[in-house]
Amino acid sequence: MEGIDYHEGERSKAEFDVEEMKIVWAGSREVFEVSDRMGRLVASDEAFRKDNRTMLSRKDLFKNTLRKAAHAWKRIIELRLSEQEASWLRFYIDEPAFTDLHWGMFVPAIKGQGTDEQQQKWLPLAYKMQIIGCYAQTELGHGSNVQGLETTATFDSQSDEFVIHSPTLTSSKWWPGGLGKVSTHAVVYARLITDGQDHGVHGFIVQLRSLEDHLPLPGITIGDIGMKFGNGGYNSMDNGVLRFDHVRIPRDQMLMRVFQVTREGKCVQSNVPRQLVYGTMVFVRQTIVSDASSALSRAVCIATRYSVVRRQFGSQNGGPETQVIDYKTQQSRLFPLLASAYAFRFVGQWLKWLYMDVTQRLQANDFSTLPEAHACTAGLKSLTTSATADGIEECRKLCGGHGYLCSSGLPELFAVYVPACTYEGDNIVLLLQVARFLMKTVSQLGSGKQPVGTTAYMGRVADLMQCCCAVQRAEDWLNPSVILEAFEARSARMSVACAQNLSKFANSEEGFAELSADLVEAAVAHCQLIVVSKFIEKLQEDIPGKGVKRQLEILCNIYALYLLHKYVGDFLSTSCITPKQASLANEQLRSLYAQARPNAIALVDAFNYTDHYLSSILGCYDGNVYPKLYDAAWKDPLNASVVPDGYQQYIRPMLKQQLRNARL
Amino acid sequence: MEGIDYHEGERSKAEFDVEEMKIVWAGSREVFEVSDRMGRLVASDEAFRKDNRTMLSRKDLFKNTLRKAAHAWKRIIELRLSEQEASWLRFYIDEPAFTDLHWGMFVPAIKGQGTDEQQQKWLPLAYKMQIIGCYAQTELGHGSNVQGLETTATFDSQSDEFVIHSPTLTSSKWWPGGLGKVSTHAVVYARLITDGQDHGVHGFIVQLRSLEDHLPLPGITIGDIGMKFGNGGYNSMDNGVLRFDHVRIPRDQMLMRVFQVTREGKCVQSNVPRQLVYGTMVFVRQTIVSDASSALSRAVCIATRYSVVRRQFGSQNGGPETQVIDYKTQQSRLFPLLASAYAFRFVGQWLKWLYMDVTQRLQANDFSTLPEAHACTAGLKSLTTSATADGIEECRKLCGGHGYLCSSGLPELFAVYVPACTYEGDNIVLLLQVARFLMKTVSQLGSGKQPVGTTAYMGRVADLMQCCCAVQRAEDWLNPSVILEAFEARSARMSVACAQNLSKFANSEEGFAELSADLVEAAVAHCQLIVVSKFIEKLQEDIPGKGVKRQLEILCNIYALYLLHKYVGDFLSTSCITPKQASLANEQLRSLYAQARPNAIALVDAFNYTDHYLSSILGCYDGNVYPKLYDAAWKDPLNASVVPDGYQQYIRPMLKQQLRNARL
Repeated sequence: MEGIDYHEGERSKAEFDVEEMKIVWAGSREVFEVSDRMGRLVASDEAFRKDNRTMLSRKDLFKNTLRKAAHAWKRIIELRLSEQEASWLRFYIDEPAFTDLHWGMFVPAIKGQGTDEQQQKWLPLAYKMQIIGCYAQTELGHGSNVQGLETTATFDSQSDEFVIHSPTLTSSKWWPGGLGKVSTHAVVYARLITDGQDHGVHGFIVQLRSLEDHLPLPGITIGDIGMKFGNGGYNSMDNGVLRFDHVRIPRDQMLMRVFQVTREGKCVQSNVPRQLVYGTMVFVRQTIVSDASSALSRAVCIATRYSVVRRQFGSQNGGPETQVIDYKTQQSRLFPLLASAYAFRFVGQWLKWLYMDVTQRLQANDFSTLPEAHACTAGLKSLTTSATADGIEECRKLCGGHGYLCSSGLPELFAVYVPACTYEGDNIVLLLQVARFLMKTVSQLGSGKQPVGTTAYMGRVADLMQCCCAVQRAEDWLNPSVILEAFEARSARMSVACAQNLSKFANSEEGFAELSADLVEAAVAHCQLIVVSKFIEKLQEDIPGKGVKRQLEILCNIYALYLLHKYVGDFLSTSCITPKQASLANEQLRSLYAQARPNAIALVDAFNYTDHYLSSILGCYDGNVYPKLYDAAWKDPLNASVVPDGYQQYIRPMLKQQLRNARL
Repeated sequence: MEGIDYHEGERSKAEFDVEEMKIVWAGSREVFEVSDRMGRLVASDEAFRKDNRTMLSRKDLFKNTLRKAAHAWKRIIELRLSEQEASWLRFYIDEPAFTDLHWGMFVPAIKGQGTDEQQQKWLPLAYKMQIIGCYAQTELGHGSNVQGLETTATFDSQSDEFVIHSPTLTSSKWWPGGLGKVSTHAVVYARLITDGQDHGVHGFIVQLRSLEDHLPLPGITIGDIGMKFGNGGYNSMDNGVLRFDHVRIPRDQMLMRVFQVTREGKCVQSNVPRQLVYGTMVFVRQTIVSDASSALSRAVCIATRYSVVRRQFGSQNGGPETQVIDYKTQQSRLFPLLASAYAFRFVGQWLKWLYMDVTQRLQANDFSTLPEAHACTAGLKSLTTSATADGIEECRKLCGGHGYLCSSGLPELFAVYVPACTYEGDNIVLLLQVARFLMKTVSQLGSGKQPVGTTAYMGRVADLMQCCCAVQRAEDWLNPSVILEAFEARSARMSVACAQNLSKFANSEEGFAELSADLVEAAVAHCQLIVVSKFIEKLQEDIPGKGVKRQLEILCNIYALYLLHKYVGDFLSTSCITPKQASLANEQLRSLYAQARPNAIALVDAFNYTDHYLSSILGCYDGNVYPKLYDAAWKDPLNASVVPDGYQQYIRPMLKQQLRNARL
């Protein structure tokens, strides 16, 4: 059965040009070509195999990750890969490793917070990996509240050094990736103390391990924090624990771009705007949104391909059973996730533009759009990562029992993905930040200050409080301006209702705390509006390729009407739509599912994932699922012997009624 | 810091008698005492330690499980434990093993489907574990649709034997627990063929392995299907694959209580009613609902205890930060789950009664309540397992980053629990069965046939289509009859709307398929009503103990109003309540959270879980979380050496720029 493509029939049903859709998905022809090339490079290199990953013990898994990282670096050097190529190479290797933190956090921290001299000293070392760095912020007792960190960096003016110290158990650094076993250096966040005065949290470059024998330097206690969720998953990463016992570093290892300590111990705020920090946050969170679309699309690709192979019930006259993808219950769970993957992709592409826009403005000393951009990326990070974590698990359930096998790829994908809901800002804490921004926006509406960017619609709040949804027939719900108005009205009305309820409290902080669950819901409504509106904007671009735009329109409508159905309580309780209109939306949604059905396989083919990257028997390109599942089973370590280890000591005495005298 | 109880202050806040609540939770004083005794027995026996479980390789984990099972059986014999005690012992050992299937599926299948002679022959062997059995139904290509199984049992009248055979790859038995490496026997489900005629699927007792050397018998191919979701988790179970190549068994090994094959090969339906099968299903699903309350309560216990320890933000004048349990966002996610755990407990206790009631009726040849009981248990199995799986993951997120560590206990609890959403009836398939029953009930309303049991309210459909919710102030939502009416009206109206939409289709099966997503929502509404109404009924019992009833009232109201808020779209679109009333419900809910807060720790203490059973540092009874987390980290295998294995080969060459020549 080798060589047969069980999905061929499905592929021939597609009503659009898949190759063009691949370019839309990638964002540009250039990105498509680079990523395609790197995907193939990884898939064809035996050194990057990962099909046995979930069976490895922690130590073997970790050692194997070190090997892959070294091999990847060797290939990067040999092939003289560009930064972009190297980044795609790591993407397709698809194994969390210390290099993620080195390139993704350590280097950017020095770039963003180091002075020019510091960058000149440290960046070349980091670029060549002569040092390996990580980002040591979170502590055992302190996560979201960075200002509550306990580690201290006390300036000793006599020796011109900082003394880094962990005064309590809860001040132990805890979680930083790459810290536990690999990093030689870290950017450590600690409270700056000069002359007994606390100047808040700043970053310091600290060497952790000897460059000769890799042993921790004096005063440093360091290790791995132990097993995490899932087989494989994030266990390839050495998230670490770190304690300092009065460790001394030279004064010039404090990152001093924004805030400086002089030789005399005087603190000086530099003329570099502090807001730069928010620019970095916008950047990091933008990559998280892009990662969300990758993870969700991967799960959707697996579930879609398997839903076409799997058949259950509905056999007529002894013929084959029905493909489960043809059940409306399956479609109503799967297709919204397919649409979400595309929606997150496009909002991620837009965030890349937003980051560039903000950066340019910052360089021109224009901070006007920064708060809005910051709130927007915080909200989108929260929205997309929560939806993706839930969506991966839903895809696993959509694969029935077989989705529970590691060979489906879905358990590991879920386990490795879920921390995204917590790191770089807990998703609920972030939504509260968005809500705070929305309340501020609403409160300033009367003042004549016009809201900008994604909150611009709030400027039309008077209209939005009044407007009536014009839908009379199901097809009316296909009109983008109708959809947009409904989402804008819902969001505006929820924010205004929150603001009104808040105004009843004498103490506004108390009110904010008391109403926080409602505020979170208002923030979600605002963020969903952003995703919907960016999808609609995408459709206004010139999109080449036969039928491509039509498919995107269908997906955009599915995404919007699925949200409308799921959150119909919001729309109804704010009287944005009537029950009848809600029911028409649902009717339209069913018809959209029927239109998406013949294109489903092609729409996931457009993600252009190799079988290596997917790492899922259920999601394999050729659909030849059952023989592959069957063959894979025998590779489990338990099948190495026919009679299991333990039979003589435990099973046989039980069967032979000889347990009473057995030593167990 | 040993011996300090960090939760003592919290415990002293409780406004009710925790010891009495423990008995309410257990269901009776007798059950409390047995379970308490067995919980302590397991916790005090070093042989049952599980704190290193997530670090073991598959082989070591499996061998360790065999050891525990043998040790447990030894203790059961030595202490002459009753069946009930033995079952609680296995509960607290808390490690999926072949014994679950032996006692939970193999023995009941013989009891339920075997003739008296078959029971006399096989049960004594099984009771003494002289044979170990499993339940081989699911196949690689066939899950939910049992009637689609492909394995054949062809009667050979010459030799008076059945020939068991796997005609295709997809007919391979796949998933049965205990099959892969341990079971000596199985009840195998196969299509009965006599004289070339197919008589549907029946059960057959088949010996799989030699009782002498444990080798598979001739014609039998058998093995483990490989790694499953999570570290530890279900990997202690040998879910198996099994193929038959014309394996012969004597005729009397077909389970013949309901359907017989004579010596001549004639098929005879016995006078035992086929409906008995449904009685067994009611039993099995009843235990699943009870297990759901155990799993959810365990997660809630961990998240609640840790939410009291964890502090973030809100430090005033350098004092301690705010306990995260005091944030409304935390309460609005955690307390509904606490209330759900109690709700599921009570509906589970009621299902036990329902099973006894159905059994008694069946014995008296009264089948009138069986369809309703079957639909009800199917729906509750679906509702409680889905909510529990999602709830465990929500509890993990409520613990922030540390919930991602295996030492929190939550990742393993999630991974081991989620298959409950798929086994014993896929949750969506089950809801469609409920919907089918509801549509039948609605269609018969005109005929004068009165709906019974949990659908009795449908008899008042005319009233329920008309009624107006009487709520005018937030406190009105505390009235049980107001809540009940709102839930009844919502469910009735959703079912009636579905029935009306169905009637528009010429072909009712096509209509059912097209509207299946709506039908699932109607089924969910009906099942939620059952849980709410059983909680309210519980409150009408005589409940002793200071303040206990009051706490249960608070939890019942939280459960109902949380559902009302979450599904407010249902209530609004069916005009059961107004937007204003929805907002009052939300207001009342906030006030209920405030009332639950001081009792939160005592309410989870009432589950009476030992630290061994919880297996969670975050959820430990004394709340001394951080030192325990810190100490546990060092036990990870990666910390066995300071410099990691792989440093010389992979890290050092990278740092020293010697990769080019390295062999990796």
